[in-house]
Amino acid sequence: MLPIVVVSLSVGAALAALFWARRFFTEMMVADEGNELMREIAASVRKGANAYLRQQFKWVAIVFAVVSLLLAYMSIYLGLATAFLPLAFLSGGFFSGLAGWLGMKTATGASARTAAAAQHSLNAGLLIAFRSGAVMGLTVVGLGLLFVTGWFAILYWLVPLFGGAESAMSLPQISIAMLSFGMGASAQALFARVGGGIYTKAADVGADLVGKVEHSLKEDSPYNPATIADNVGDNVGDVAGMGADLYESYCGAILAAAALGVAAFGSGALVPEGWTQVSAQLAAMMLPLAIAAAGILLSIVGIYAVRTREDLSQKSLLAALARGINLSTGLVVIAAVVLAFLMMPRVEGTVLFGVLPGVALSIIMGLVAGWSIGKWTEYATSDEYRPTRHIADQARTGAATIIISGIASGMISTWVPVVIICTAMLAAFGFANGGQFHDLQYFSLGLYGVGIAAVGMLSTLGITLATDAYGPIADNAGGNAEMACLDPIVRQRTDALDSLGNTTAATGKGFAIGSAALTALALLAAYFEGVRDGFDRWGNSFAATAAGDGFHAVTNDFVIHREGTRVEKYLALRGGYGSAGPIETTGIEFLDPERQRGRLANYGGELVAIPSATIRDFATYYDATLMNPRVLVGCFLGAMSTFIFCAMTMKSVGRAAQGMVIEVRRQFLEKPGILTGEDKPDYERPIELSTRAAQIEMILPSALGLLLPIVVGMLLGVGGVVGLLAGSLTSGFCLAVFMSNSGGAWDNAKKYIEAGNLGGKGSESHKAAVVGDTVGDPFKDTSGPSLNILIKLMSIVSVVIAGLVVRHSLVALGWF
Amino acid sequence: MLPIVVVSLSVGAALAALFWARRFFTEMMVADEGNELMREIAASVRKGANAYLRQQFKWVAIVFAVVSLLLAYMSIYLGLATAFLPLAFLSGGFFSGLAGWLGMKTATGASARTAAAAQHSLNAGLLIAFRSGAVMGLTVVGLGLLFVTGWFAILYWLVPLFGGAESAMSLPQISIAMLSFGMGASAQALFARVGGGIYTKAADVGADLVGKVEHSLKEDSPYNPATIADNVGDNVGDVAGMGADLYESYCGAILAAAALGVAAFGSGALVPEGWTQVSAQLAAMMLPLAIAAAGILLSIVGIYAVRTREDLSQKSLLAALARGINLSTGLVVIAAVVLAFLMMPRVEGTVLFGVLPGVALSIIMGLVAGWSIGKWTEYATSDEYRPTRHIADQARTGAATIIISGIASGMISTWVPVVIICTAMLAAFGFANGGQFHDLQYFSLGLYGVGIAAVGMLSTLGITLATDAYGPIADNAGGNAEMACLDPIVRQRTDALDSLGNTTAATGKGFAIGSAALTALALLAAYFEGVRDGFDRWGNSFAATAAGDGFHAVTNDFVIHREGTRVEKYLALRGGYGSAGPIETTGIEFLDPERQRGRLANYGGELVAIPSATIRDFATYYDATLMNPRVLVGCFLGAMSTFIFCAMTMKSVGRAAQGMVIEVRRQFLEKPGILTGEDKPDYERPIELSTRAAQIEMILPSALGLLLPIVVGMLLGVGGVVGLLAGSLTSGFCLAVFMSNSGGAWDNAKKYIEAGNLGGKGSESHKAAVVGDTVGDPFKDTSGPSLNILIKLMSIVSVVIAGLVVRHSLVALGWF
Repeated sequence: MLPIVVVSLSVGAALAALFWARRFFTEMMVADEGNELMREIAASVRKGANAYLRQQFKWVAIVFAVVSLLLAYMSIYLGLATAFLPLAFLSGGFFSGLAGWLGMKTATGASARTAAAAQHSLNAGLLIAFRSGAVMGLTVVGLGLLFVTGWFAILYWLVPLFGGAESAMSLPQISIAMLSFGMGASAQALFARVGGGIYTKAADVGADLVGKVEHSLKEDSPYNPATIADNVGDNVGDVAGMGADLYESYCGAILAAAALGVAAFGSGALVPEGWTQVSAQLAAMMLPLAIAAAGILLSIVGIYAVRTREDLSQKSLLAALARGINLSTGLVVIAAVVLAFLMMPRVEGTVLFGVLPGVALSIIMGLVAGWSIGKWTEYATSDEYRPTRHIADQARTGAATIIISGIASGMISTWVPVVIICTAMLAAFGFANGGQFHDLQYFSLGLYGVGIAAVGMLSTLGITLATDAYGPIADNAGGNAEMACLDPIVRQRTDALDSLGNTTAATGKGFAIGSAALTALALLAAYFEGVRDGFDRWGNSFAATAAGDGFHAVTNDFVIHREGTRVEKYLALRGGYGSAGPIETTGIEFLDPERQRGRLANYGGELVAIPSATIRDFATYYDATLMNPRVLVGCFLGAMSTFIFCAMTMKSVGRAAQGMVIEVRRQFLEKPGILTGEDKPDYERPIELSTRAAQIEMILPSALGLLLPIVVGMLLGVGGVVGLLAGSLTSGFCLAVFMSNSGGAWDNAKKYIEAGNLGGKGSESHKAAVVGDTVGDPFKDTSGPSLNILIKLMSIVSVVIAGLVVRHSLVALGWF
Repeated sequence: MLPIVVVSLSVGAALAALFWARRFFTEMMVADEGNELMREIAASVRKGANAYLRQQFKWVAIVFAVVSLLLAYMSIYLGLATAFLPLAFLSGGFFSGLAGWLGMKTATGASARTAAAAQHSLNAGLLIAFRSGAVMGLTVVGLGLLFVTGWFAILYWLVPLFGGAESAMSLPQISIAMLSFGMGASAQALFARVGGGIYTKAADVGADLVGKVEHSLKEDSPYNPATIADNVGDNVGDVAGMGADLYESYCGAILAAAALGVAAFGSGALVPEGWTQVSAQLAAMMLPLAIAAAGILLSIVGIYAVRTREDLSQKSLLAALARGINLSTGLVVIAAVVLAFLMMPRVEGTVLFGVLPGVALSIIMGLVAGWSIGKWTEYATSDEYRPTRHIADQARTGAATIIISGIASGMISTWVPVVIICTAMLAAFGFANGGQFHDLQYFSLGLYGVGIAAVGMLSTLGITLATDAYGPIADNAGGNAEMACLDPIVRQRTDALDSLGNTTAATGKGFAIGSAALTALALLAAYFEGVRDGFDRWGNSFAATAAGDGFHAVTNDFVIHREGTRVEKYLALRGGYGSAGPIETTGIEFLDPERQRGRLANYGGELVAIPSATIRDFATYYDATLMNPRVLVGCFLGAMSTFIFCAMTMKSVGRAAQGMVIEVRRQFLEKPGILTGEDKPDYERPIELSTRAAQIEMILPSALGLLLPIVVGMLLGVGGVVGLLAGSLTSGFCLAVFMSNSGGAWDNAKKYIEAGNLGGKGSESHKAAVVGDTVGDPFKDTSGPSLNILIKLMSIVSVVIAGLVVRHSLVALGWF
């Protein structure tokens, strides 16, 4: 019953999101697109964006073809994962790509219309831009939830329906299979975020260096051949990239929470009276879906709350926007309480006030954490607060001091997000397991709390992403107004819209990083579920070839027991008891009637049944402590990977920008008339250049993120992978916050000076601030956001290949 | 017998080091100090340096008084550590301070003499500078080894001699007590490295910004009031700071290896025939001392090999210098093989070629790693190689591009050192334990390999530190020549010496980071020895108040058994067996005659005797896996601490430099005659300012390093501390390499341009490169090197307070 209700609710919410997305899209499309020049410019940007997407999808198609063949080999031929994996991978990528394509279509359609509406009033422009942003937000959550729910329905209902009862999968099998399905979204996000990040900054820096610096053209001047590419870049990087990033977080968080929910009741010890183990697992698995569904519906409510009277000032519009988000958030808090109350089993010791499962507060922790990180990001980067003002002040002594102080400010700004994430993690863990930190049985329930906190944080994505996507639309509207030589008042209005967008963008970036960290945490926690599944499959395939009934040693530390078709698998924990030589399978004595724990004869060690093995059992099995050189090496490599990933993306931007500089210079040289308006610049060539550069330059960093978990897994085993994920997560989170905040603060410090402070435009201070801003560009728009993808991608790749590592790594082979 | 031989050898080697240090010092002091002006300038620098040291020692005295009182309270009153700790803390700090003072005295004495000798020939200057550097190198290793050996002799021989046989300490007690003795050196290093780093860059940036930029004075111009302070800074930061840093690494590595050696034979399982457990432990404990002693003697040999004919060119002098280091290194390799062959027990399965204990190769791994990181640092920062040339090339498009490419290059340069450290760690681990990665009994032996690799790396410190300390001496000689208006040929020669010093300084910095990482690794591995000791003490103090003989539950997971004065302590590992409620101490059944492992009744869990508990047992006890939120939070905080530590030190430099700028401007304003040579500038005031700023500005970062392990330990327990150390080590290592290499590369890119490339001095490229260099200054001379201290300090503080955390943390109290 419960799954039918929740799945219906989820599908309903997802369809509602898509319905409203379509509605907002249609509303936008019927609006006036302005005069012919405006339409022409918008068409150029649209064409460029489409060209980029087509090119990107071509690459993505190749990569997806190759990867899905590899996955098919791994899952179908080697039997190391579910046979649905390749199909799920393709469908996940398709949905994510579709969301990006629709978002981009909307954004490129909205820019000229926003500019046209801004001819009438500020509000009209804001409403078009914001509603168009909402299309992106709602499409992402709608398609995301549809994807997750659809696959659940297939595995839960359709597989036994068509395959017969014997093909039915257990809930752990379903949840672990689905966990690996997040990989399609990750691969798509990689292309969108890293490629988009390189594209946008190559175009931006190229346009600025030649156009603005060498020829003193204005921002968005139609005489600049790279202007259209620059405008395309905003859409490519900030709309499609951000959308794919958060789509990945959204699906990943829901899938990880579902897997952790099933694992929380894996041993059956916590199942309260009146529940079966399966019903408890199902409830815990459905809760994230229900929260996501509620979040979608309440986001739509929030979006409508942004509707305002026509005569509002910009400041109160910002307040209206905040009201929308706050309303959604507040309603989701209530929904979380109600849903947890209705759905969750009352596990002894975790019930608050005698009625409320503690997990409700875990959800709220996630919401609070997301909101707080956003606010802090605003504080750290907005020119209304001390840190950015201080950076701007350092411009007076030149470029060097503004750079140093920007880097120092960015680095120091990491402390609050780290403390927030740590507090949220501990609190979510503690609320979910009733503060029973010392009782191992409750450990998995605590991890479920962490997973569901990530879902809570992302539940309002429908509206928060709307405010993000709004920014580049407003930015492009400004570009359109400038190029179409509209009345200066229009440009002023679009600038005002853009400045509002900067605030929401900062919040959005913080939110993206925070949710990536919490999602990666949930994936890290869920990693051992993949390991558990790997053992399960290994045991089955061994049993299929094993001689007969009874105990069999698969390796020296892995034992199965076969009885007809029933195969039980046991980890043999042999440490401390004696030698690690060949195992004796005679004389095994079980400690409990369910045969969950046993002892080998002659003090040879302990047996633990795979389904009820705790994470500590796995950690003991793999000796996954930080004292183990394998784990520590993994941790080192994880930290290192974040640094070289940043370096690679920065260097990519540098190279791509250099190509752009040469191209723009060439055009000015060959047709000097461009600068006077006599000749028309060739807008297409820079777009092609940026597109090609983005695709080529992202190969190396992508390969790093994809291959490192595989290499580390095969060489150093499960322990090494855990170290790698922890190292990349902790170090990558700090690095991402540092780079985004430094970049954001430099950007705003420059704007602060341009607003007339500290000497204003053209002063020495301004020149220094421009240097800071240029350094900050790849920091905040390429390297920083790309780290979000890296930490999630490494986690999901690790989960997907867990079966391979469990069975075929050097450690598993006993070589190392 | 063995301890007498090794202690005699060590004391002999230490005294030899001090003897030769004194000899080189005397040789230098009798050399001509040049004309009166040169002597006067040298005296000013000497005076400034002394003033700084006096001031620093005042602060150090206060801190040491407070900390030693706290340590006395903790160790004597609370009984959480050995009662010798406060005294050892004071003596460690004293020896380190003494080494710094002597090194600085030599360096400030040598600068004018080097300049004077350079009047005759390049070689004469080089020999004075290098031999003076050797004074620092030999003093550090001499005093360091004397400190370690002295305390061993006191605890091993004098305590039972004066205290009677019942006061005799076991080898584990001695080794763990001595491990915590490293803290004195750490505290001193903190002041020297962080304070020195702030001082030197405040003076440098202040002198440059006003003198060079605003008034176009030359480097080291006598008209610049901050010139002397700048020259003092070189001594304070690069001589005393570097010396204290490596003194700490040196002592820390030896002490950690000794503790790990004792632990390796802790369970008695690996003791081969013909050895007792104690003799095996003693051998493993003495080996690091013996290697250090051999390293000292062979460093002296190497220093003599640098002696060359008078007519050598600069290039062949560099070769001669490298020959000295290579000779020492090669001889130490032979010594390592011989000593391991003579001293180490032949543990089954770890003997290579039937004769050689594998630990010999672990030592060699350390040497190779140190050498390789040094070489890579040279590649990454020298303008003879592609990375720095590429950075210089980016200066053509302005400050922003040179900054971006410098940051990217620095970040990417982390990969080689990380791979080297990881490979060295795995190889040292694998060689020491014969590749038996799967056998827990061999685990501690592997960790001993890691510890002894650190000792191997640092064994040639006598000569490698000589090449480091040489750099600032040559630099100061140049300053002296400039201020004394010597013949330009002299300045040319000192510049040549300085440029040679830059190469050795880069290698030295890489070596310092590498050795800090390996020492911190060894300390991390040794951390659980401190935890073991904490349980031992806790058990004893509980037994002293316990009711009678038999089993007693100290907590729900800690059991002791008392029989008269004999107290056995057991960890109760209860996970997976059932509830974590109150423990039953009846019906305990032991699995082996030595009562090392037992089982609680009714499947209530397992008992493990503290002395033979493996690291995995402790990790299981504390659930110290990376899935545990406590550990993960620790890891996050560790990574974060390195970022905010960097930010704090950078901001400190910024503030201190600003004070200096104001002071220098004031002097020029009040006495305009300074600029024309009519008035004499006040050199003293800038020195005072820098001194005071350095002391004040270092409070916050120091407090972070000292307090964070305590706070994390008390809140999150042992698991949190392990996470903290791993997080700060991995992230801090990457950050330190990145910052040092970026800074070094910018410095050399600027010099490359100044040498006439890409437009040469005064060109736009040069201006951009100056911005890069200025940004790089705090990177490479303050924040980067200070991170070495942070990661070691947090480790040693954690070891020292292990007893406190074991017994009184929230986790131990069962609250969390």
